Amino acid sequence: MADTQDKLYAMRHSLAHIMATAIQDLWPDVKLGVGPVVENGFYYDVDLGDIKLSEEDFPRIEASMQAIIKTAQPFERFTMPIAEALEWAHKYGQPYKAELLHDLQREGTTVAKDLNAAMMGLPAGVGGTTAPQVITEVSFYRNGDFTDLCRGPHVESTNKVGAFKLMRVAGAYWRGKETNPQMQRIYGVAFETPKELRQYLDMLEEAKKRDHRKLGQELDLFITSDMVGSGLPIFTPRGTVLREELAAFSNALRENYEFQKVWTPHMTKKDLYEASGHWAKFGDELFLVKSQETSDELVLKPMNCPHHTRIYASQPRSYRDLPVRYLETTTDYRDEKTGELGGLSRVRALTQDDSHVFCRQDQIEAEIDNLLNCARELYSTVGMDLRVRLSYRDNTDAYLGDMTLWENAQKQLKAAVVANELQYFEQDGEAAFYGPKIDFMVTDAIGREHQLATVQLDFVQPERFGLEYTAEDGSSQRPIMIHSALLGSIERFLSVYIEHTAGKFPVWCAPEQVRIVSVNQEEETLAFVNVLRQKGRELGLRIETDNTNESVGKKIRAAELWKVPYVIVAGDKEIAGGELVPRIRKDLVVSEIAKSYTADEFLRTVANEAKTRVNKSSM
Amino acid sequence: MADTQDKLYAMRHSLAHIMATAIQDLWPDVKLGVGPVVENGFYYDVDLGDIKLSEEDFPRIEASMQAIIKTAQPFERFTMPIAEALEWAHKYGQPYKAELLHDLQREGTTVAKDLNAAMMGLPAGVGGTTAPQVITEVSFYRNGDFTDLCRGPHVESTNKVGAFKLMRVAGAYWRGKETNPQMQRIYGVAFETPKELRQYLDMLEEAKKRDHRKLGQELDLFITSDMVGSGLPIFTPRGTVLREELAAFSNALRENYEFQKVWTPHMTKKDLYEASGHWAKFGDELFLVKSQETSDELVLKPMNCPHHTRIYASQPRSYRDLPVRYLETTTDYRDEKTGELGGLSRVRALTQDDSHVFCRQDQIEAEIDNLLNCARELYSTVGMDLRVRLSYRDNTDAYLGDMTLWENAQKQLKAAVVANELQYFEQDGEAAFYGPKIDFMVTDAIGREHQLATVQLDFVQPERFGLEYTAEDGSSQRPIMIHSALLGSIERFLSVYIEHTAGKFPVWCAPEQVRIVSVNQEEETLAFVNVLRQKGRELGLRIETDNTNESVGKKIRAAELWKVPYVIVAGDKEIAGGELVPRIRKDLVVSEIAKSYTADEFLRTVANEAKTRVNKSSM
Repeated sequence: MADTQDKLYAMRHSLAHIMATAIQDLWPDVKLGVGPVVENGFYYDVDLGDIKLSEEDFPRIEASMQAIIKTAQPFERFTMPIAEALEWAHKYGQPYKAELLHDLQREGTTVAKDLNAAMMGLPAGVGGTTAPQVITEVSFYRNGDFTDLCRGPHVESTNKVGAFKLMRVAGAYWRGKETNPQMQRIYGVAFETPKELRQYLDMLEEAKKRDHRKLGQELDLFITSDMVGSGLPIFTPRGTVLREELAAFSNALRENYEFQKVWTPHMTKKDLYEASGHWAKFGDELFLVKSQETSDELVLKPMNCPHHTRIYASQPRSYRDLPVRYLETTTDYRDEKTGELGGLSRVRALTQDDSHVFCRQDQIEAEIDNLLNCARELYSTVGMDLRVRLSYRDNTDAYLGDMTLWENAQKQLKAAVVANELQYFEQDGEAAFYGPKIDFMVTDAIGREHQLATVQLDFVQPERFGLEYTAEDGSSQRPIMIHSALLGSIERFLSVYIEHTAGKFPVWCAPEQVRIVSVNQEEETLAFVNVLRQKGRELGLRIETDNTNESVGKKIRAAELWKVPYVIVAGDKEIAGGELVPRIRKDLVVSEIAKSYTADEFLRTVANEAKTRVNKSSM
Repeated sequence: MADTQDKLYAMRHSLAHIMATAIQDLWPDVKLGVGPVVENGFYYDVDLGDIKLSEEDFPRIEASMQAIIKTAQPFERFTMPIAEALEWAHKYGQPYKAELLHDLQREGTTVAKDLNAAMMGLPAGVGGTTAPQVITEVSFYRNGDFTDLCRGPHVESTNKVGAFKLMRVAGAYWRGKETNPQMQRIYGVAFETPKELRQYLDMLEEAKKRDHRKLGQELDLFITSDMVGSGLPIFTPRGTVLREELAAFSNALRENYEFQKVWTPHMTKKDLYEASGHWAKFGDELFLVKSQETSDELVLKPMNCPHHTRIYASQPRSYRDLPVRYLETTTDYRDEKTGELGGLSRVRALTQDDSHVFCRQDQIEAEIDNLLNCARELYSTVGMDLRVRLSYRDNTDAYLGDMTLWENAQKQLKAAVVANELQYFEQDGEAAFYGPKIDFMVTDAIGREHQLATVQLDFVQPERFGLEYTAEDGSSQRPIMIHSALLGSIERFLSVYIEHTAGKFPVWCAPEQVRIVSVNQEEETLAFVNVLRQKGRELGLRIETDNTNESVGKKIRAAELWKVPYVIVAGDKEIAGGELVPRIRKDLVVSEIAKSYTADEFLRTVANEAKTRVNKSSM
């Protein structure tokens, strides 16, 4: 598995170089940015001046790549001192490479924070979150006439790169900064075999049909507005039903375990994040708020934990009071780059189904067990496969908190995961600096894996905020904090869930659960439709009517387009008290609901199905 | 009534002058700010340099005032050109008066916008929101040796001022601006007769006991945090129950009338408010948000209507689709002066139970009728008397929209109020510039009247946003918007409601509905307590237990302090299956709940009481 991953990584990385080679052949004046491996493929950022690439250019580029592949150029590695590398960059007219090298020379590896260290020809293990190091030398790879600053690894020669396809080109600011020049980012996908590539492209075809932005519009779930801004979606009545049902489910699961709802404002003085340490770490991801009436320095909250510590700290707590469990579904604001915003996948307003447990060390396993139970029930109800990653610390000193505390906590996390019979894997070095965590990986209906929710232990915030409880022996002790969100953010969850279901939502959260179609517009028919609708509403159902002057067939097709689970035709037979034969959306498992019913029985059955969140979809 | 009001106004205003006279006698160097009439009394802002007044100085000031009152100095009015008035201010060392006069000279009456025009000796009808006028002359009043810039009116002489009492002194920035010098604001209350003054002071005593800030702490409903900031309360689990129950009630009332929930983010580009016109009118009350990643100019939303117009406008609408009714309980942010913030009465984060109807002109009455029905049910359930003010336009040109539209709309508003048999009064000139409205005035348990909710028609936003619907004849028409909030803001409503109930919340919204007190800590007792608690929770009750090692008497008294509606003692008799005799909070009307019960029956009765929002309080 690890071998396959490494091999695929080298293939994709080599394809990025081959693509750059091809582009340089076609447009010799190209200025190259960086070209990393990404999920399922690779990209390269290029500056072609006024030349604007489009998908129409792909056949040419692909043909040129294939030619390079055929010639089986070997990839050769060599190193240079930074000063020499700079000369190389200037000589070959590569100002972006020169900029990277220059910054590296000036600042050491701290500069690698905002870029892929691998792209800078830095040794493995350098860059990212590790401490700055002094670097004197960088590595290069050469294939044919093409040379690139690069850490590698690469495949042996250009003919060992598997199957690939160029996918799209998009604008991308150099180093992700709006004030920098805009480059063109060309994406490709690549797999070991043509068959795997084909499968992936088929999956993409299917994903395109299910695109949540497309379905969001077709099913009238959410809108965006230029006047409001990007990454700030507005939810229509139908989309709001989804939000509310999902949040209510997530809350109900934890309320079973005696979580208590709390409420905090969306804004705070920055003092709170200075105290928590977030200001120093994430200050540039915060939206700054200016008061025109006061001199307060305010920010929008990007998370809720520091607020929740204020409630914990507002009362003296004894060991008997613990665990204290707070729950809040609330909107956080994060200053994402707008280039990354689109639909609901990445938003600037993200609503978290957030919770925080304050507990003793000996309570960790039981609390984790509760949360895993909640997650299991949630993901089985929405019909997604769940596996978890146990993210532990490694042996570096990048972590805060006592080693015994970590070991004890990691043991309890694993015990809870094993007891819950969850599929899991363990990974050292994936913990947050403040504690180990469990990441939930879910697989959707077309096989894509997403990381949505997490459960994280935190040894640091209780320390920074001086949180305490009185132990049985009268001593003052620090509680542990457990952060968790089951859906993660409602917006991002919806982006996955809309595509997972292709908009065919199960009855419990369907924006419209039942539609009544009248066969004509006669008074008696309309009266009957109204009575049914009223009965349904009294049972808490979301029930709509279609009394328009269209044919029954057309009205049924309209309901199908809206993906309404159940459609009832109200005709003479039904009015006369005859049995209803509901039309059932095709993905729903035909069960007792398919039987003939009196109207009352039918509505009660659906209401019950909604209340118990039955998952009947055959997807 | 109007006469009494005018008389009282003159008395209070005269007392402000008498107080200033007394202060000038005691501290001749005093620099005077302004001294207007406020609800129940008056104040004067004074600058005494380093001298800091306290309530200990009040007897001296009051004695000096009484002496002035006794001498029956007549109040004499005279006028001066502004230039001469400025000389007067300089001569008598009154820089604040000079500043007012100076600004007036420079800017005309627009300067009166942020101050009480009356305090500036301007003619009646000048200042406030009317158009700027050129002013050449100001009026003064003199009593004894004291002269003040003032519009009047005053009583004949200082001995005609009724009964008064100085209440408190507080810091107040000159003209309400943080960057200006801080003055001392001395408040007094005044009534026509000593008896009325006594009644008012008694009411204040009672209000003090019920102060929601005090009860908020004692009953653990909300907290504030210096790190988070003023006007940004955080709600604890108990307070959050109140918020959620109130919002759910308010929403449920409107959902009966087919309002649909929507969701909008708390932030928007300022473009939205430029389009709506709010930016020009209220731009300085907005919190400005700075993105560090983009150049977007963002603000926090102070209201939700412009967002809701985006949803309306996202689909074509026909006359058959109307009314479209949106509902959103969401938090708005307004940049209030921090000097005005305290508890929940005035906050910077205010959660509105907001709704917007988009309807045809001929639908106004029916829609208003729905909303009045909702308000009536809400205020009768919380036990507050309701009367409404019909706020109409006057004959000035301060209003936008066609006159026929206004007349038709005002007629429909009144018809709905009359049909609902609501107590009402009509007032010309109280409408918003964009439409007539209904203001809800409610009287609390100790006789204070509050304005909480409103229903407002709006002819302007549909115009500014170009909202349309297709009429039956195929023509394109503008809908009318109806803004309304039943609670107003949840925070402000709670500030009133906590004091109205003195923290004795009815069962449906009580944070803790039932408490079970164990008579001992034996296993059998604790098991029984647990079973009861679990049963209660399954019925949706908020039920807590007290198993501490205290006496039953002490535990019952503790439950009384928490104002828990029902307390059950779990002793041997109850465990043996004997009947429960619940202890009922004294304000609750003793009804069937007082009967002896099996545990199951009792819990079911309470759950039913909660669900139906029975108002049983005898307050």
